[in-house]
Amino acid sequence: MSVASNLEAAVSAIRTLPGIGERSAMRIAMYLLKEDLRLVKQLAESLIELKTNVCFCEICSGLSIQKICSICNDKQRQSDLICVVEEPFDVLAIEETAAFNGKYHVLMGVLSPLDGIGPGDIRLNSLFSRVQKGSVKEIFIATNPTLEGDATADYIHEKLSDQDVLITRIAHGLATGGNIEFSDRGSLARSIRSRTQIS
Amino acid sequence: MSVASNLEAAVSAIRTLPGIGERSAMRIAMYLLKEDLRLVKQLAESLIELKTNVCFCEICSGLSIQKICSICNDKQRQSDLICVVEEPFDVLAIEETAAFNGKYHVLMGVLSPLDGIGPGDIRLNSLFSRVQKGSVKEIFIATNPTLEGDATADYIHEKLSDQDVLITRIAHGLATGGNIEFSDRGSLARSIRSRTQIS
Repeated sequence: MSVASNLEAAVSAIRTLPGIGERSAMRIAMYLLKEDLRLVKQLAESLIELKTNVCFCEICSGLSIQKICSICNDKQRQSDLICVVEEPFDVLAIEETAAFNGKYHVLMGVLSPLDGIGPGDIRLNSLFSRVQKGSVKEIFIATNPTLEGDATADYIHEKLSDQDVLITRIAHGLATGGNIEFSDRGSLARSIRSRTQIS
Repeated sequence: MSVASNLEAAVSAIRTLPGIGERSAMRIAMYLLKEDLRLVKQLAESLIELKTNVCFCEICSGLSIQKICSICNDKQRQSDLICVVEEPFDVLAIEETAAFNGKYHVLMGVLSPLDGIGPGDIRLNSLFSRVQKGSVKEIFIATNPTLEGDATADYIHEKLSDQDVLITRIAHGLATGGNIEFSDRGSLARSIRSRTQIS
């Protein structure tokens, strides 16, 4: 193989990664060429190890090292409370707060008609199945506070309206340390409408 | 290893790449988790192959699959004309034009006092050695038309002023298809000063 074909193979493989264009891929290729072979091998191995060791839980689709994740297996956690999130990383973020002690359900996406993503393309049916089994008391929807996240929350709410289950939504408001003057107007409007009583 | 430590290992390895921050690294990790293991292995292998197969030529420091690159070894090319560039990819760009038939010298960087990069940090001494061997007639400096690229060109010009060698600089001007109104003023000024006679 020539220099060009070797480069091309690497650059086109790197380009498949999200957020990496042609120029970034070439910069990365050049960086790797200048690095130690040992470091490049370490990077390559960590990618394969991640993919080999970590999978998605068969119940909640959160990240797991076994078929069923440690949260789904945890008898200490409330199994009648399910937090619905868009992506596996959202589970990690919520876990870091230690403010939630239920189980999770990762949708692996969000409803987005403009991108052609409908109810059948995300993990909604498996969520409804979990609810229909009857032991769930609350579905806590923690999709992102975006147009798509809100639409997905509304869709779930509507679909579960005939079920005996409480549907809650993560609170919207000003971020801690935020600033009213510089808040975007949408967030500010929601914070005003969702104002809470000081008790 | 837990999910978190597996993720952390991969994310921190990905983060070492240029232009990749924490968020991009996490996005890439999630992308890889959702991809086929086969594709992830292919990416990992292409990185190692690139690093194993491609090296820097011992003479010009351009990309090569052997110790001495095909350009340095090419008897058909003018060996008394050396084009000085900043990075190995610049060689590929110039080769694609087919407008140059000499040899190359890659500096592997550019003088940049603000970043602490002085003459000893880039491949200037090996350039001067090549000139001192006496068979070089022209040094064609094709560093980028930036403050640093220009300063490097000036430095080389000064250092070689006592040698019997022609020093040329790549022409600066408007890009083909460019637009006078929207050209940045520095480029425009250079294009005016470097105006050429229509013959």
